[in-house]
Amino acid sequence: MRASVLRQAGEVRVEERPVPEPGPGQVLVRVGAVGTCGSDTHYYEHGRVGPFVVRAPLVLGHEAMGTVVACGPGVEDRVPGERVSLEPGVPDGVCEQCRLGRYNLCPRMRFMATPPVDGAFCEYVACDAHFAHPVPDVLSDEAAALLEPLSVGVWACRKARVGPGDRVLVTGAGPIGLVVAQTARAFGAAEVTVSDVSGPRLAAARRFGATHTVDAREGPLAGSGVRAHVLVECSGAAPAAADAVLAVEPAGRVVLVGMGGQEMTLPVSHVQNREIEVTGTFRYANTWPAAIGLAASGAVDLDALVTHRFGLAQVVEALTVGRRDPEALKAVVYPGR
Amino acid sequence: MRASVLRQAGEVRVEERPVPEPGPGQVLVRVGAVGTCGSDTHYYEHGRVGPFVVRAPLVLGHEAMGTVVACGPGVEDRVPGERVSLEPGVPDGVCEQCRLGRYNLCPRMRFMATPPVDGAFCEYVACDAHFAHPVPDVLSDEAAALLEPLSVGVWACRKARVGPGDRVLVTGAGPIGLVVAQTARAFGAAEVTVSDVSGPRLAAARRFGATHTVDAREGPLAGSGVRAHVLVECSGAAPAAADAVLAVEPAGRVVLVGMGGQEMTLPVSHVQNREIEVTGTFRYANTWPAAIGLAASGAVDLDALVTHRFGLAQVVEALTVGRRDPEALKAVVYPGR
Amino acid sequence: MRASVLRQAGEVRVEERPVPEPGPGQVLVRVGAVGTCGSDTHYYEHGRVGPFVVRAPLVLGHEAMGTVVACGPGVEDRVPGERVSLEPGVPDGVCEQCRLGRYNLCPRMRFMATPPVDGAFCEYVACDAHFAHPVPDVLSDEAAALLEPLSVGVWACRKARVGPGDRVLVTGAGPIGLVVAQTARAFGAAEVTVSDVSGPRLAAARRFGATHTVDAREGPLAGSGVRAHVLVECSGAAPAAADAVLAVEPAGRVVLVGMGGQEMTLPVSHVQNREIEVTGTFRYANTWPAAIGLAASGAVDLDALVTHRFGLAQVVEALTVGRRDPEALKAVVYPGR
Amino acid sequence: MRASVLRQAGEVRVEERPVPEPGPGQVLVRVGAVGTCGSDTHYYEHGRVGPFVVRAPLVLGHEAMGTVVACGPGVEDRVPGERVSLEPGVPDGVCEQCRLGRYNLCPRMRFMATPPVDGAFCEYVACDAHFAHPVPDVLSDEAAALLEPLSVGVWACRKARVGPGDRVLVTGAGPIGLVVAQTARAFGAAEVTVSDVSGPRLAAARRFGATHTVDAREGPLAGSGVRAHVLVECSGAAPAAADAVLAVEPAGRVVLVGMGGQEMTLPVSHVQNREIEVTGTFRYANTWPAAIGLAASGAVDLDALVTHRFGLAQVVEALTVGRRDPEALKAVVYPGR
Repeated sequence: MRASVLRQAGEVRVEERPVPEPGPGQVLVRVGAVGTCGSDTHYYEHGRVGPFVVRAPLVLGHEAMGTVVACGPGVEDRVPGERVSLEPGVPDGVCEQCRLGRYNLCPRMRFMATPPVDGAFCEYVACDAHFAHPVPDVLSDEAAALLEPLSVGVWACRKARVGPGDRVLVTGAGPIGLVVAQTARAFGAAEVTVSDVSGPRLAAARRFGATHTVDAREGPLAGSGVRAHVLVECSGAAPAAADAVLAVEPAGRVVLVGMGGQEMTLPVSHVQNREIEVTGTFRYANTWPAAIGLAASGAVDLDALVTHRFGLAQVVEALTVGRRDPEALKAVVYPGR
Repeated sequence: MRASVLRQAGEVRVEERPVPEPGPGQVLVRVGAVGTCGSDTHYYEHGRVGPFVVRAPLVLGHEAMGTVVACGPGVEDRVPGERVSLEPGVPDGVCEQCRLGRYNLCPRMRFMATPPVDGAFCEYVACDAHFAHPVPDVLSDEAAALLEPLSVGVWACRKARVGPGDRVLVTGAGPIGLVVAQTARAFGAAEVTVSDVSGPRLAAARRFGATHTVDAREGPLAGSGVRAHVLVECSGAAPAAADAVLAVEPAGRVVLVGMGGQEMTLPVSHVQNREIEVTGTFRYANTWPAAIGLAASGAVDLDALVTHRFGLAQVVEALTVGRRDPEALKAVVYPGR
Repeated sequence: MRASVLRQAGEVRVEERPVPEPGPGQVLVRVGAVGTCGSDTHYYEHGRVGPFVVRAPLVLGHEAMGTVVACGPGVEDRVPGERVSLEPGVPDGVCEQCRLGRYNLCPRMRFMATPPVDGAFCEYVACDAHFAHPVPDVLSDEAAALLEPLSVGVWACRKARVGPGDRVLVTGAGPIGLVVAQTARAFGAAEVTVSDVSGPRLAAARRFGATHTVDAREGPLAGSGVRAHVLVECSGAAPAAADAVLAVEPAGRVVLVGMGGQEMTLPVSHVQNREIEVTGTFRYANTWPAAIGLAASGAVDLDALVTHRFGLAQVVEALTVGRRDPEALKAVVYPGR
Repeated sequence: MRASVLRQAGEVRVEERPVPEPGPGQVLVRVGAVGTCGSDTHYYEHGRVGPFVVRAPLVLGHEAMGTVVACGPGVEDRVPGERVSLEPGVPDGVCEQCRLGRYNLCPRMRFMATPPVDGAFCEYVACDAHFAHPVPDVLSDEAAALLEPLSVGVWACRKARVGPGDRVLVTGAGPIGLVVAQTARAFGAAEVTVSDVSGPRLAAARRFGATHTVDAREGPLAGSGVRAHVLVECSGAAPAAADAVLAVEPAGRVVLVGMGGQEMTLPVSHVQNREIEVTGTFRYANTWPAAIGLAASGAVDLDALVTHRFGLAQVVEALTVGRRDPEALKAVVYPGR
């Protein structure tokens, strides 16, 4: 089969590799569509993401869907021909975190496109059957692949306990911020305010669930009059996050989805006097069923996020289109085309 | 002013009464629209609802909205001219239940149209300013009145912890069942199955949020293949409720909204082996903000529930239209017309 | 090795069997002590418990501890010589319930001493390493074995959300009721009232955590003045349970631990008007760490529950001592003696 | 009556004042014992605490108990002669926060000894009957007064969701840290580690519930091997807090009780990767019933905290004894002696 392989920072090649054999409990999936993510781009450009370093050739791509073509020993619940969305992280299932239902915190998690585990920019992958979720026909291939970023949004909204009537502030209108905005609406939020420093991104936010937008170039959020029950921080900018915390109401919740650095300055007297809860998300757990429901019912529109489409030979273009096109939201790679 | 007064079971008269004076912390409201409820009808027909007996002339009607026309001493947050939706129960604010935020369980609750507290089938009411909730212009008078039954639905869905992706079963497609079905969708439920024994009601359910309907005349729910994370029981029929519990999944929730009797037979081994939670609702607490949000965003359509409209002289017709017209959902009384 | 085998109802024999081989991820444990449970006795007397029927020879005993003597392939966290308490149910780790952290509801759970899975009335067992919990030296062998019934109590108190200051009512002062009473105190309960129909059992309750006792022969609980935030029902008598529900406060919780029958009559208007939550327990999940902590700190005294001790040849005496001695609480079998 | 009055920073005088009249819903209480708190000392030394400035003569003291001597109009649940512990903050009971049960966040809270509301260093106070909690005889006067700091501990442990089996880290072994340590044990914590920079305080911690202590002068906590499910920060030192966060386990909780400054540097990647929740406490709500239960059962020992006793004329000594005696924990003022 053909696979797009990251050899080292800046070097991607299409190579021939053997089609994998599905092991016990695994299915073999012919990959249909794979979304590109900022972490893929970061591996391509820097050869690492935080502590994860590319030391051997690595296949990127972890927002994937495809069609089951074979089942390994012991697989009972999947059949060839089923379209499946792939949950990219497979935990050990037995550690303390897994037994508590927090499998995203499993220390032995194997996660696609994270060294040394290969991802899905290739024609076939073998993966755990229980993490290959069947999708209904109403979902397009692209939507099935983008259930992964939707899961990020579902997890953030769960951590934030977004509920009907809430006012939600989303800082950052990149792909994750846009998904979070839509997801918050689907959780019943009455108002979703999105802030960003880019005009095109704010315009996108208005198409994707925001009831209000704030241009963060015009001054601190705390002065904008925004008052939110929930802040979901998706900008990755620590000062913006600290400023946004000041817009959170008493007993409000702050969920940090996208911080890049090690530290941020927390306005702690504000947090204490209002008993605000601050937490972060690390991947997700048990989100696919809800994500499938939200996408299938139309409550969240994933198809509209796709702005660019590429074949397997164009992975570099897919990973870098965001650098060239300010309107780019999500590029999808189709390994079989 | 004119008031429609229940003198005793079966006897309603329009009488002249003095316009009430708003006391400290109260507002005087000119009543605009009042929905009729099954409990109003029950008082009219039987002179009592359970332990609450009509011993003195009583004004019925507790699904009310209107316009503030005067503020009593100490009222700061309301101004004449504001349209408000009335939360009909005012708790004491100081007992243990109130301090815990469970004010619906306040033993000294004063609730409109529940003896000896008068309701809103009249031209003016004086009520606690904090329980007269301003509504946005986008809400019609009818919708503002029907925030009360919507609150019943919000409370039921909260108690049931309805969330995105859930499969919800609603037994009974009367006005409350229809509101619950819509509310469950607004909470993100992926599937809402409504069961009833009436064809017109099942047809209504399909218009009001149900993704599936089950004709309960065709056999027990347990045999229908329905599998629900959540059961909201709105039929008031104990055998139907017990049957429906058998359709609930492991770790599912059952909320009994509308039981009439003292007892029901619970399939306890099913409840234990699946660790199902069973509870009931008694009115609601802290629901108006969410209800306003859901109605204002269009997530829930209250206007479409209104099938009949009456003036103050026609309260008996309003209370009994459901007996005559199987298509009747909600009758609204307009005291000022 | 020697094993005590239930051939059919009423027939138990000690037989020679091969020592099991620990499979991948398993440890081989030399069994030290095994508590006897009402379900063991029920299998012995009736050859079944509900839907579980003894169709082939079965080793009983699921409250077990021992010493690791060998590790199967892939076991990293256990070493020979470690004393371990055995969690008797091993779930599949991959199904929806397991991934949600509710592994006690796993439909493919394999549970010791439940057909067709053998238990621990034998010299050696092979079991999943992650479910063989190391215990500190401060715990006796008996206490390590009885972490299993303590887990039942921990799970019941978690489900009931017992917290500091709560008033807890426990109906039934058998071994489980006594463990629940102690556990409730360890969760901070201010008052624990235990009811039973047996004088010796009520006396035992006063030694095991009860601050008050009620002799249920003297009349209904509802008339006793008991008012509880939490009811943990351990008597298995449906009418007693229904009566006890009437003693539960608004917003209280009812946890049914020990019902035997299919149905119970629920005082549903009481449940609704007070918004009481009713649920049941099915085994337990993630309880061993807390149980170890409670036993090791002395907050719960398990040793004092042991009233009778037997060797492997005396399993029948162990299973039936409760029939002969009203003071019997817990009989322990020592397979190695 | 006599009252100890703070005229301005550094100036306290005993003055004659009229005995207050209990208003509607109030009781008149003859004050028995009043604990001193760091905030009282801060007002005395600086004339302010954060935004609260002493602009008029102020009576300090908010950890108070006494005996009801008269009831104002409408008081039904209290009788002269009852010993009561005073909850010092009385919310408005009608705002959004109050209705949600979060009355500690009420923006119109009136809190004793916080300008312009007088406290209890005087012979009589009139206070809301619902916030004058009857105490059982088993509680000493000192313990009844110190239910206030115990409430701080109960609230912190609730916010942290401390439960049986948890490992808890408390930074700072001042009076609040000591109360939190004891409270955590009473909530079932298996291990409570207390850190401080003072030898006498660490010794006190070992007497008050700590199972382990760490001398923070010896290096960062993160290097000490401490691994906690819960961190309750009571030192008020932002760098110590940030260091301690690194000792928190995945899915752990951090509760900031005693920060003094506006900001702290949060190790945000640690918080995100482990999905740690960080929050703060602001006073408390609904804690007295649990605090009474914990003190009455002996689970928490408040009497042993009292190291110094003073009369009304010695309030300055009471407020400053901690400056002179490193063994001082809690000074109590007895206005009637």
